[in-house]
Amino acid sequence: MPIYQAPLRDYQFILSELLNIYGRDDLQGFDEIDAELTDAILQGVADFTTEIMLPLNSQGDTQGCQLVDGQVRTPEGFKDAYQQYVDNGWATLTSDPEYGGQGLPECIGVFATEMKTATNMAFAMYPGLTHGAYAAIHAHGSDALKAKYLEKLVSGEWTGTMNLTEAHAGTDLALLRTKAKPVGEDTYAISGEKIFISSGDHDLADNIVHLVLARLPDAPDGVKGISLFAVPKYLVNDDGTLGCRNGVEASALEHKMGIHGNSTCVMVFDGAIGELVGEPHQGLRAMFTMMNEARLGVGVQGLGVSEIAYQNALSYARERLQGRALSGVKESESPADPILVHGDVRRMLMAQKAFNQGARALMGQQALWLDESHRHQDKAKATIAAKLAALFTPVVKGFVTDQGFKACVDAQQVYGGHGYIHEWGMEQFVRDSRIAMIYEGTNGVQALDLVGRKLLADKGEALGLWSEMVKPFVAKYLEDEALKPYLMPLMEATTDLEKATQYIVANGVKNPDIIGAASMGYLQILGIVALGWMWARMAVKSQQAMTAGEEEAFYANKLVTAKFYMSYWAPQTRSIRYQMERSCELLTQLQDSDFD
Amino acid sequence: MPIYQAPLRDYQFILSELLNIYGRDDLQGFDEIDAELTDAILQGVADFTTEIMLPLNSQGDTQGCQLVDGQVRTPEGFKDAYQQYVDNGWATLTSDPEYGGQGLPECIGVFATEMKTATNMAFAMYPGLTHGAYAAIHAHGSDALKAKYLEKLVSGEWTGTMNLTEAHAGTDLALLRTKAKPVGEDTYAISGEKIFISSGDHDLADNIVHLVLARLPDAPDGVKGISLFAVPKYLVNDDGTLGCRNGVEASALEHKMGIHGNSTCVMVFDGAIGELVGEPHQGLRAMFTMMNEARLGVGVQGLGVSEIAYQNALSYARERLQGRALSGVKESESPADPILVHGDVRRMLMAQKAFNQGARALMGQQALWLDESHRHQDKAKATIAAKLAALFTPVVKGFVTDQGFKACVDAQQVYGGHGYIHEWGMEQFVRDSRIAMIYEGTNGVQALDLVGRKLLADKGEALGLWSEMVKPFVAKYLEDEALKPYLMPLMEATTDLEKATQYIVANGVKNPDIIGAASMGYLQILGIVALGWMWARMAVKSQQAMTAGEEEAFYANKLVTAKFYMSYWAPQTRSIRYQMERSCELLTQLQDSDFD
Repeated sequence: MPIYQAPLRDYQFILSELLNIYGRDDLQGFDEIDAELTDAILQGVADFTTEIMLPLNSQGDTQGCQLVDGQVRTPEGFKDAYQQYVDNGWATLTSDPEYGGQGLPECIGVFATEMKTATNMAFAMYPGLTHGAYAAIHAHGSDALKAKYLEKLVSGEWTGTMNLTEAHAGTDLALLRTKAKPVGEDTYAISGEKIFISSGDHDLADNIVHLVLARLPDAPDGVKGISLFAVPKYLVNDDGTLGCRNGVEASALEHKMGIHGNSTCVMVFDGAIGELVGEPHQGLRAMFTMMNEARLGVGVQGLGVSEIAYQNALSYARERLQGRALSGVKESESPADPILVHGDVRRMLMAQKAFNQGARALMGQQALWLDESHRHQDKAKATIAAKLAALFTPVVKGFVTDQGFKACVDAQQVYGGHGYIHEWGMEQFVRDSRIAMIYEGTNGVQALDLVGRKLLADKGEALGLWSEMVKPFVAKYLEDEALKPYLMPLMEATTDLEKATQYIVANGVKNPDIIGAASMGYLQILGIVALGWMWARMAVKSQQAMTAGEEEAFYANKLVTAKFYMSYWAPQTRSIRYQMERSCELLTQLQDSDFD
Repeated sequence: MPIYQAPLRDYQFILSELLNIYGRDDLQGFDEIDAELTDAILQGVADFTTEIMLPLNSQGDTQGCQLVDGQVRTPEGFKDAYQQYVDNGWATLTSDPEYGGQGLPECIGVFATEMKTATNMAFAMYPGLTHGAYAAIHAHGSDALKAKYLEKLVSGEWTGTMNLTEAHAGTDLALLRTKAKPVGEDTYAISGEKIFISSGDHDLADNIVHLVLARLPDAPDGVKGISLFAVPKYLVNDDGTLGCRNGVEASALEHKMGIHGNSTCVMVFDGAIGELVGEPHQGLRAMFTMMNEARLGVGVQGLGVSEIAYQNALSYARERLQGRALSGVKESESPADPILVHGDVRRMLMAQKAFNQGARALMGQQALWLDESHRHQDKAKATIAAKLAALFTPVVKGFVTDQGFKACVDAQQVYGGHGYIHEWGMEQFVRDSRIAMIYEGTNGVQALDLVGRKLLADKGEALGLWSEMVKPFVAKYLEDEALKPYLMPLMEATTDLEKATQYIVANGVKNPDIIGAASMGYLQILGIVALGWMWARMAVKSQQAMTAGEEEAFYANKLVTAKFYMSYWAPQTRSIRYQMERSCELLTQLQDSDFD
């Protein structure tokens, strides 16, 4: 069975030293948290995920979910584990105290999510979707709706889902057809079919609150005619007890490549009773307000699975004896050297490690920006944080899930033939992590969001705000000989980012299709630079701590990993920029028959 | 169900125009082939693979193989399809006419393999392994052994396997423990356990001939003490009829990520009777003589699955309506434009297409070098061809399976959520193609073979031979304005290859671990340049044909794809070289604890 060691020291480093989150009295509620509290919470999640969730991961994959008489059964052990999850209060961490939540900031919650995803991605999706439903109702629901649902969703007693996709309407929600017919005061009958509904039905909780996009009878065409509804599996009586079964049912389970332990359902709504969440025809806007958080959650999946894959690949590379080091025998008492001596195994492992730790730091930064956007006392600063979070949302989702998947493939490769065999667990990580590149907006959609909305429509304002943070930072430390090796490669990569930006700005207006053709390269370049920025900041902090004589092993490890990032990851921007500059125009000129 | 259209026109182009294989009277047996014969054969394989093998691919994946009472059952339909395969003579194409083969060259056989792999990789492995066993006995077996086995293996009436790996001895065969005890004149009792044995047991044929690596009692330690044995499932009587069941059995089926239709077995040899193939203790040498062909076969798997994945992704991109082109509505009568209008979808598709067609041309070239090495009347030229084939063996295996897998992942991505669902077939392509990066020597081993043996141990001779082909070619066409756009990027990439070579030569001697650390980057650079060379040659041929006014659509399509290769693939060498120059030394200096 795969092993897992929660990266608790890394969390401390990021929260306390890198992001400096304690004692921030400018952020509402941050005065109530300190390192001791954070450590206790993250340790608790580490224990729960490692002891309860991890042992269920492989069997969840093997057994999958079953649909029996219209009711989904989750894999063995899931129900009991979920009950413990609820009883221990792990569902409540970042939710509003008014409804029973603990009110913790996102920058702590994001690491709880990482551990949950690493140990059992399919299981973690049940509370993950619930939190999404909670957030939608919390942000847009009427007081009555909040009173009806929020406490149960916060505690985890009930779960939630998001029903967006229809067979013919995936990325393009403008095409969706599910209908909502008014049937009484504030109630509607919802009819239609939704596909790919994560956690759509299951046996973990007494009720499921489906958040459903549908069209009212008078709705305008396209995205401006979509409304959001809350549709419970069981209707809820006025006293809060459960009433009749509602007209919504899982008609099938999807047969997926991975995340078998999560019930991905085809949901049929046949006049199911629901209530409007937010204003009529404003459903997409309601979804968009939660998008940054939801996409951060998916990005963290890319990181979480990559982390556990790395830990296992490293462990295997230390134990597996095959061949001898090219520089001569390293372990003469063994029949062969551990494969960690081989240069290409080292390359794969360090590429994963440098990515994971860089991505983790970026996740923390992104979560803190989200916290600042919601909690900053200074509205101007809250607005800046919101802009930065919006800019980096496609990066944490698109770049991190792309590279996280590749890291899982490399981790699997370290195992050789055993990587292809189910019992070793590595191939499951590859299959599970693959979905994160697709759902919550494919990574191509993320790239387009980045270049179209966050760069061009924004006229580069958010990018400019960020550059104004990066440039003085680089300038400040570039002349420090000890830090120069970490800053120079970042500066080079930043130059590629600037040139890529110029390319898109110069060409995208004349030829708008260039924007799409260049978007994925741009996302990758920004991702590499963003992680480079986090690594340079981590290097500075680590160098300072080393100089102060603290915990040398930890900081020296950070510095050597930073150096590897700068020498292996950072140089990738050059070729991506060349590809963009040389191939985009051609791509836009191709005829349909050129693809034959 | 996935569609498939065999790329027959591309095969013609490669064989007839690019490689010019017809009328080669300097190659033994080539006088018997002409375009008409080749077309008929490849058309026949196209029909068989598309009509018989493709419909079994998905159900083979779903059903998998079953082990019942020590006997493996293949998925429904496989037995009947295999019988047709044998009856139609498809097993015999490239085998020796002395034993019933058709004696066709490898450069034709390789494309038959591509079609078989594309339509049903798991099924194609049964005859694939059989051909390997045939080749081993043909090259090294005694006359008695040849008489006993070859005809049946050539026809496909019996199948074959290769038994190398043991649980603790994968890449490092020096560690293997299976024993062979002499028990009579020329017979041995083989005992031990082998894992990951493709086609190890099944119900397709009456007998299975296992080629097994084992140690004789007096064997020296390590790789110099390994012998090769032929061990049949059923003993063969002197009159060729089948005798008793031999002491070899599949004790388990491996649970794999993909290729479920192929029976990957744990094989237990319990005093199984076998005969020596070749000389005692020369088993690895016997395996090595077949390695180029075997690795070409695996490389072709990377190409074949990538090709069918591309065809389906393209078809989906033309039909799936989502969103509108950034440059404005393209299909106003539809509710949305086909996703082929989107720049990032185009980028993914063209990257796949340019890779597939470039890789296909390289496969043809590699197969022709192998043919020349075996069949050239001029021994000096045969030797040169053998050296070139040896140099490019790690490229066709390692580079093509790496990039073929990535192409499958991109093809899956084009499908969005449907790519993750089994019924659409794309996720199977990803799972199936993944194994090709691992078996027949992991791609890390290929990279090490390239740099350690084919570059350094060879003192650059083979690379020099190849450069002497590339340089005059580039020089000849570089001044032609119409061809310059195809030659310049190739020249730039070649410069990166030269600098990477210099880096390794300069540093590998001082610090041998550099060789391993740099090897994968070097393999990728050589692969990109090699495909670039094929593309430049295809561009020249196409330009000439266009000028001659021939079949304009076909050649224009080749030229635009060549241009895309040069603008998207070729520039990738720069960053890979930077990574190599900057990160390799650091990789070799890392301590074990640096990976924590």
